[in-house]
Amino acid sequence: MLSERSIDPAALDLLKKAAKDGIETVWDRYEAQQPQCGFGSLGICCRHCIQGPCRIDPFGQGPTRGICGATVDVIVARNLLRQVAAGAAAHVDHAYDAVEALELAAQGKINYPIKDKNKLRTIAAGLGLDATDQDVNALALEVVKVAYADMANHSQTPIQWLMAHAPKERIAVWKDLGILPRNPDREIREALHQTTMGMDADPVNLVLATAKQGLVDGYAGLKLATDMQDILFGSPTPVVTEANLGVLKSDYVNLIVHGHVPLLSEKIVEWAKTLSTEAQSVGAQGIQVAGICCSGNEVLMRQGIPLATNFLAQELAIVTGAVDAMVVDVQCIMPSLAQVAACYHTELITTMPIVKIPGATHIPFSLENADEAAQVIVRKALTAYTKRDPQKIHIPDHRSTIMAGFSVEAISAALAHLDADQPLKPLVDNIANGNILGVVATVGCNNVKVTQDLFHVEMVKELLKNNVLVVATGCSAHALAKAGLMNSEGTERFAGASLQAVLTAVGEAAGLGAPLPPVLHMGSCVDNSRIGDLVTAIARYLGVDTSALPVAASAPEPQHEKALSIGTWAVTMGLTTHLGVVPPVLGGKQVTELLTQGLTEVIGGKFYVETDPLLAAQGLITDIRAKRRALGLDN
Amino acid sequence: MLSERSIDPAALDLLKKAAKDGIETVWDRYEAQQPQCGFGSLGICCRHCIQGPCRIDPFGQGPTRGICGATVDVIVARNLLRQVAAGAAAHVDHAYDAVEALELAAQGKINYPIKDKNKLRTIAAGLGLDATDQDVNALALEVVKVAYADMANHSQTPIQWLMAHAPKERIAVWKDLGILPRNPDREIREALHQTTMGMDADPVNLVLATAKQGLVDGYAGLKLATDMQDILFGSPTPVVTEANLGVLKSDYVNLIVHGHVPLLSEKIVEWAKTLSTEAQSVGAQGIQVAGICCSGNEVLMRQGIPLATNFLAQELAIVTGAVDAMVVDVQCIMPSLAQVAACYHTELITTMPIVKIPGATHIPFSLENADEAAQVIVRKALTAYTKRDPQKIHIPDHRSTIMAGFSVEAISAALAHLDADQPLKPLVDNIANGNILGVVATVGCNNVKVTQDLFHVEMVKELLKNNVLVVATGCSAHALAKAGLMNSEGTERFAGASLQAVLTAVGEAAGLGAPLPPVLHMGSCVDNSRIGDLVTAIARYLGVDTSALPVAASAPEPQHEKALSIGTWAVTMGLTTHLGVVPPVLGGKQVTELLTQGLTEVIGGKFYVETDPLLAAQGLITDIRAKRRALGLDN
Repeated sequence: MLSERSIDPAALDLLKKAAKDGIETVWDRYEAQQPQCGFGSLGICCRHCIQGPCRIDPFGQGPTRGICGATVDVIVARNLLRQVAAGAAAHVDHAYDAVEALELAAQGKINYPIKDKNKLRTIAAGLGLDATDQDVNALALEVVKVAYADMANHSQTPIQWLMAHAPKERIAVWKDLGILPRNPDREIREALHQTTMGMDADPVNLVLATAKQGLVDGYAGLKLATDMQDILFGSPTPVVTEANLGVLKSDYVNLIVHGHVPLLSEKIVEWAKTLSTEAQSVGAQGIQVAGICCSGNEVLMRQGIPLATNFLAQELAIVTGAVDAMVVDVQCIMPSLAQVAACYHTELITTMPIVKIPGATHIPFSLENADEAAQVIVRKALTAYTKRDPQKIHIPDHRSTIMAGFSVEAISAALAHLDADQPLKPLVDNIANGNILGVVATVGCNNVKVTQDLFHVEMVKELLKNNVLVVATGCSAHALAKAGLMNSEGTERFAGASLQAVLTAVGEAAGLGAPLPPVLHMGSCVDNSRIGDLVTAIARYLGVDTSALPVAASAPEPQHEKALSIGTWAVTMGLTTHLGVVPPVLGGKQVTELLTQGLTEVIGGKFYVETDPLLAAQGLITDIRAKRRALGLDN
Repeated sequence: MLSERSIDPAALDLLKKAAKDGIETVWDRYEAQQPQCGFGSLGICCRHCIQGPCRIDPFGQGPTRGICGATVDVIVARNLLRQVAAGAAAHVDHAYDAVEALELAAQGKINYPIKDKNKLRTIAAGLGLDATDQDVNALALEVVKVAYADMANHSQTPIQWLMAHAPKERIAVWKDLGILPRNPDREIREALHQTTMGMDADPVNLVLATAKQGLVDGYAGLKLATDMQDILFGSPTPVVTEANLGVLKSDYVNLIVHGHVPLLSEKIVEWAKTLSTEAQSVGAQGIQVAGICCSGNEVLMRQGIPLATNFLAQELAIVTGAVDAMVVDVQCIMPSLAQVAACYHTELITTMPIVKIPGATHIPFSLENADEAAQVIVRKALTAYTKRDPQKIHIPDHRSTIMAGFSVEAISAALAHLDADQPLKPLVDNIANGNILGVVATVGCNNVKVTQDLFHVEMVKELLKNNVLVVATGCSAHALAKAGLMNSEGTERFAGASLQAVLTAVGEAAGLGAPLPPVLHMGSCVDNSRIGDLVTAIARYLGVDTSALPVAASAPEPQHEKALSIGTWAVTMGLTTHLGVVPPVLGGKQVTELLTQGLTEVIGGKFYVETDPLLAAQGLITDIRAKRRALGLDN
């Protein structure tokens, strides 16, 4: 049934058009894949050597071990470790590109000016560098040197980026468990080695190695990427724009940026502005850039570029018939886009050496040729505009006003209007007095297994009603943005009375003339590091461990291996981390028990799996209330 | 049927005992896994995101794409890339440990003297270092610096270890293809990233990335590991001993080393000698050390320690009831060993942080505590000896004499007796005149899908009959050793007349008083680098590209992801590379075509899959004859 596919009215509208146009979508392919393999779904299939594949009988009637003798928990744990390592690798690779960019920028070799000197000085000082009166480029190179040194570390010392930024109490916990990561690349290599045939056969050891990968992800991936990107492109400040496919304009050249890295998308935004006058030469009013997935979030946060849509609806953006070019960088890019684009006039443009799609136009993008490539891409969109088929155009009239740009710096600045000396105090006081019951971070993807956006929106509404402040990133942020939960009206409609009062007070004090939105958009998936920074700052202010805070995380619709690595990091931070889709671990009872209970004893955090949004909200609230009681805030 | 399980008489003997003792073996678990999943076997199942698992219908009646839109070839290519990256990661991790050992040894921080100063100087000179009159430790540290620098390389320059050792003609080919690897860890990280959801959707790009991982494996894994290990422990020279489980002694303490790294096993051998007098105190005549898998090959090559058995029979070693301790390091260690050991008196001892097995005794082994740990382990074996159950002991009376230790240095030294100035000349001349038709390297594993050792032995006999010289490593070398193909009688029985004459001449000139064996044991799996060095040296001597030589590679019974990465490297070297077990790629026609044909045009080498040993031998001979003709050696 159509309504089971999405709650997004624009997506539902375009699904009808896709059916009419004969376009196969991700939902069609999902249905064609039914029934999905039960062994794979439970994580009890192993293909790590070519004696396999091996499968364990979940009913206990068939094989209980793989050919090599691996138990079901070993198979499940090895699969999970390899998936989490892949997620971490994706983020470290992303961060690494950003480090390289900062290096070349500081050397004056590329046209990327360093925009946020304050952030640079803060990061440098945090790393123990003398940041006071250094030349910006020289200081940037010193910061780069530390980042590179982490990935060239041949000693047993932990990642410096972690040691400089993680809470001391957490570092002690990780050290005791022996999971403090050294060189992130070494750890990723080791995890791959550890999961080959004839290596680790101890589920506990494998789960601990998985936790270590979570730390690699959190500090050498997320945190490093955000820090580099903020230095280069600026730390976000509040912006107001709109979300959903209604932001496309029938008389503008519509250019969509899709993927995850701002290195490309920032340049596209810049050149779309510069070349906007050329739009008239092809008969358009101008150039409308809009974003999908985290490339969208990156240019939203810093440039106020509107959001087109999130993961599951990426094909539907093209189905509007109004997207002249879609330029992609890395991650979460459906290979099917080429097939869909072929049915319309849309230019699908790949740019990265490790992301090519047969049928797409490949325009190599590098830091050195960034301006040239961006111009070529923008002009491709202009040319494509002239090839539009008016019969095929349908832009759904759905868009929501959103306020985004809530970096930790932006949140602090808003709160500083209430207490300039201790900006966190108003937030902490309101948590302490119960006006804000707690904080939940909703993150991650869409997953075609569940109705698009439904879990994000329903769960968050329930949380808000109970005065839980919500911060969001990634495709979760897109979902909540589209649903009207990122504007002042959302606060009035959905926030409980005491939360609403706080958001109104802060909004007024900050001179916004309206309440803060009930959900604060903190950025892209790598910007989950901002949530980590916020949690770390609050814990530090209160002098407690992060695991003691009335804070939880949730990936309501996780899909990507990155979601697993981010979630693992959240657990290592001591947070209860909800998943709304069951990851492929249930076949291993010991592993499942470790992830959902056993780890709590040693690390504070745990995974919490609940597939109903209202029950999940209630579960998170129960968890928050328990932490409040333990802190002596409630009886 | 029992005879389908193995051709090794010791294994067949012990399989009967295992049945009598109620011991489950790898063959039992293999049967329990039948039928194996056809999707996994064809490589057309994807579990890289949690929207999946996805499966493509190989009959074209069901889904043709994964949920994300990945085609069957994308799924197959992504799976293969991830597997080959895992194999490369295993070898780079191994090499890295050896680099660390050389560093600490040179710093005098650990008790590992640098044994092969000549090799050190050769390697140093090859790297462009001034090797003439430097202090050994200082020079070793300079060499270590280069190895570390490769894994700390943040530029686009290729792996130095590759550039210093690979043939110039090959480097040019790899450069043209854009597959010259930079920092090996960066490449492994990137491969993981490249295979996550929404990344590369181009099978050609993915296959090229796989080739790049082959180069990572070949130079930052195999070559680096062998070089470091030779410097530390000495380059092998010919040794004579025996192979097969008959080397165990009923009145000796039997201590088996199993795994892949000499760092531990060398110390075990050393301390077994030192503590041999203590054996009498427990009523034994002495201590017999024997090896399984590549730990066995390492101590065979350098210390003349007998080979116990290869991969598939590792459990059966314990079934003899005469193994007092089995100490394992990394890779190819069946988790089932703990179950088997529990039924006998055997102490199963794990030693490495990333290899733990519930039920085994874990004795942490580090470079710093090597002597202490080795003593504890040897004494565990002594104590266990007193717990033997005489009723359970059965040592099969099967063992073959073997000559091993054929490093490139040892081969050159033997040939130098014929031509001191140009040691390669006698070999090359005999290839040119057809006395030696060509060279085939047989490498890799056992795989339970095929009768143990059968493919190795039957194919090699056919090759020898046709005057093809065979060199071998890994479990292939074990198989050929057990089958009597590594002694002088083997030359007389199995080598064709002209090959026999050459081996006899060299043997006599070298003062062995007997022909060289028909199969030269070149070492462990990482020592495939020795084969690469030999091929490189011959090509350089002749001034031709390696792809032109009448040389081929074969993994008759490949099992591990490492076999896939080694095979991929052999293909990048321009060699026809035979596989006797079909890897999980057949579901992707384009990928299969690329691997078996398409790559040849651009890289010279190709994979050649043939599951019948005699047909495989004939296929390799046909390939060798074609290369001879192209070189103008035959009509």
